[in-house]
Amino acid sequence: MDGLGDRPCRDLGGLTPLQAAYRPNMNSLAGRGLSGLMYSVSQGMTTGSDTSHLSLLGYDPVRFYSGRGPFEAMGLGLRLSGGDLAFRANFATADSNGIVKDRRAGRLDEDASELAEDLCMEMDGLVFQVKAGVEHRAALVVKGEGLSDHISDTDPHISGEKVKEVRALDSEALFTAEVLNKYLSEVRSILNGHPFNSRRREKGKLPANELLLRGAGLTPRLQPFSEKYGLSGSCIAGIPMVKGICALLGMNVVEVEGATGTVNSNFRNKIDAAVKEMKKSSFVIVNIKGTDAAGHDGDAVLKKKVIERFDAALGPIMDMEATVCITGDHSTPCDFREHSGDPLPILISSPGSRRDTSQFFDEISCMKGSLRIGSGDVLQYMRQLSGNDEKYGA
Amino acid sequence: MDGLGDRPCRDLGGLTPLQAAYRPNMNSLAGRGLSGLMYSVSQGMTTGSDTSHLSLLGYDPVRFYSGRGPFEAMGLGLRLSGGDLAFRANFATADSNGIVKDRRAGRLDEDASELAEDLCMEMDGLVFQVKAGVEHRAALVVKGEGLSDHISDTDPHISGEKVKEVRALDSEALFTAEVLNKYLSEVRSILNGHPFNSRRREKGKLPANELLLRGAGLTPRLQPFSEKYGLSGSCIAGIPMVKGICALLGMNVVEVEGATGTVNSNFRNKIDAAVKEMKKSSFVIVNIKGTDAAGHDGDAVLKKKVIERFDAALGPIMDMEATVCITGDHSTPCDFREHSGDPLPILISSPGSRRDTSQFFDEISCMKGSLRIGSGDVLQYMRQLSGNDEKYGA
Repeated sequence: MDGLGDRPCRDLGGLTPLQAAYRPNMNSLAGRGLSGLMYSVSQGMTTGSDTSHLSLLGYDPVRFYSGRGPFEAMGLGLRLSGGDLAFRANFATADSNGIVKDRRAGRLDEDASELAEDLCMEMDGLVFQVKAGVEHRAALVVKGEGLSDHISDTDPHISGEKVKEVRALDSEALFTAEVLNKYLSEVRSILNGHPFNSRRREKGKLPANELLLRGAGLTPRLQPFSEKYGLSGSCIAGIPMVKGICALLGMNVVEVEGATGTVNSNFRNKIDAAVKEMKKSSFVIVNIKGTDAAGHDGDAVLKKKVIERFDAALGPIMDMEATVCITGDHSTPCDFREHSGDPLPILISSPGSRRDTSQFFDEISCMKGSLRIGSGDVLQYMRQLSGNDEKYGA
Repeated sequence: MDGLGDRPCRDLGGLTPLQAAYRPNMNSLAGRGLSGLMYSVSQGMTTGSDTSHLSLLGYDPVRFYSGRGPFEAMGLGLRLSGGDLAFRANFATADSNGIVKDRRAGRLDEDASELAEDLCMEMDGLVFQVKAGVEHRAALVVKGEGLSDHISDTDPHISGEKVKEVRALDSEALFTAEVLNKYLSEVRSILNGHPFNSRRREKGKLPANELLLRGAGLTPRLQPFSEKYGLSGSCIAGIPMVKGICALLGMNVVEVEGATGTVNSNFRNKIDAAVKEMKKSSFVIVNIKGTDAAGHDGDAVLKKKVIERFDAALGPIMDMEATVCITGDHSTPCDFREHSGDPLPILISSPGSRRDTSQFFDEISCMKGSLRIGSGDVLQYMRQLSGNDEKYGA
């Protein structure tokens, strides 16, 4: 449950949304298993959904996270592979001398997908993919051999300055810088003559005639999930970034009808899909985003309702012969409206496992539970409970 | 207590063997000290007795564990030093063309000690030691200078294929590969003409005329215990592997009458020996294997009895002026019959130390104890309680 962890909420009389929610299924799972607190990556660290999901899947982001570029690109729905070069990008407005007039092209109040599509191409043996995001935001991904992320931004990060050339920061990045500058020259030519921008100019709007790049990152080359654990893995999520990370790990990404990544997502469809997927996969991760979205919106009552709706959808897994873990990727306290480094409540229920005395699943009850665990160890812990691990030593 | 940790056992009405056991001494020690949960190496990791004992003694196996070869050799009673090369070995049957007919020589249903002894020799300045194990199993240790474990197995790992030559995997292993091939040629000659095999051939049994090697490992060069901690250390154990690890660390390995490494071991003799040893040593580790053996056999009632018998043997240490820790090296749940990654109950009792409120020593009561500790920190924790550590910093 994305952003599950919370703090006492004013609108809930000082309870957390999880405390306030009617959650018989989660409480039952906590009662028959182990519960406690989980910290994301390291104690008190405030993580993003990218770093926290990497960690939850057992891939230490401190070793493997290569910056936001690749993960924001995955968040826009691009599928990346190890070695792909990715950037955060802005559609921007520049004058004929290449001076940035507006880094956000007037926040680009319309869908720029047609622009993005026309910037996708092959050049010099490389594949360039652009995907438009919200407002002026976009991502650029370059796929091919011999790419380096030791290059400078083209984004001057301030209006009134000239768009920069891509510079190689070491000799191994010379090829990457050269081909990017060539590509960006082509991009400017396409954008300047594009009907999308003609229409904007006619309406007196700023044209999106420049693609500013920043935050170059090489997609990490990660050991496939199935190789790391000797288990097949599947992913059920509404939001593209979680799907992208799981795809990068070679997991099976299941498309579920009504899984929107919003507070209105069809949770029952997701759980049904998870149960079905468990027939062929040894591990399924299910992400629901509504809890995080409500937290960012500061809506504790909505977050409580999302939790209640998810709890009600858990029926089909209640009597499964499976190791079940419920937790979050990070906290998003409603009264803070942003991610925080507070630990997450966690429960792990597994046939035949020990049980502790905690009977309720929420941030406060879990303080009396027995688990104190880092997110990076959760999958290993579940794996041993399900009898699927390998002994270290003899 | 080897393999101490357990899960709810069917034969004990859902209690663990430790919960079900009459254990007044352990409960008393828990009541007057600290208790809690200890994980072996890292949370949820399922460890072997070799990696877990290294960790308990403060030597991180992730840094120092060099594969099963050296530790299995120690498990057969060979004493190793840092730099010794060790292999897991099989007595096998090969035809006159060197094709493996049976990798286990018909599982060799008789003691092969006389074979093993005749394969011990010196050659080219190196000492070769072979020790027979259960059935066809054996270990080979090579002692001397300049050895490398970057060499290939001779075991083809399948019948019907030719026994392989030892190949050097890098140039520094050339000497090792050469001398091993020379030794193995001598081994074949001895085995083929050995009366042991003449008798087997007469009875129509497969001769043990080949020694297949696999899993080469260099024994890690570990800082001696006394140097690492500034304390003398002793070991009281029935099983050879624990004795071997402690010998490798330069600890004093005490031989105790009746210490068999089985469920019938003489626990009182071991505790008496530990009390006596504490007069000259600053630290004594006592291993009892019966708990693990009963766990592997799936016999929860027996495991409970072993614990009760050990508890009853603790009398002589109950009023000692000493820091006492009771825990296990890993869990071996009876209903699972194998090692698991479940955390271990741990108690530490030390004169003048803090005490927490937990009054019982078992997996479930310890969840309410104050300790959450990794095995690698236990000795450091005990050392500071006993006032024997050195300040880090000023």
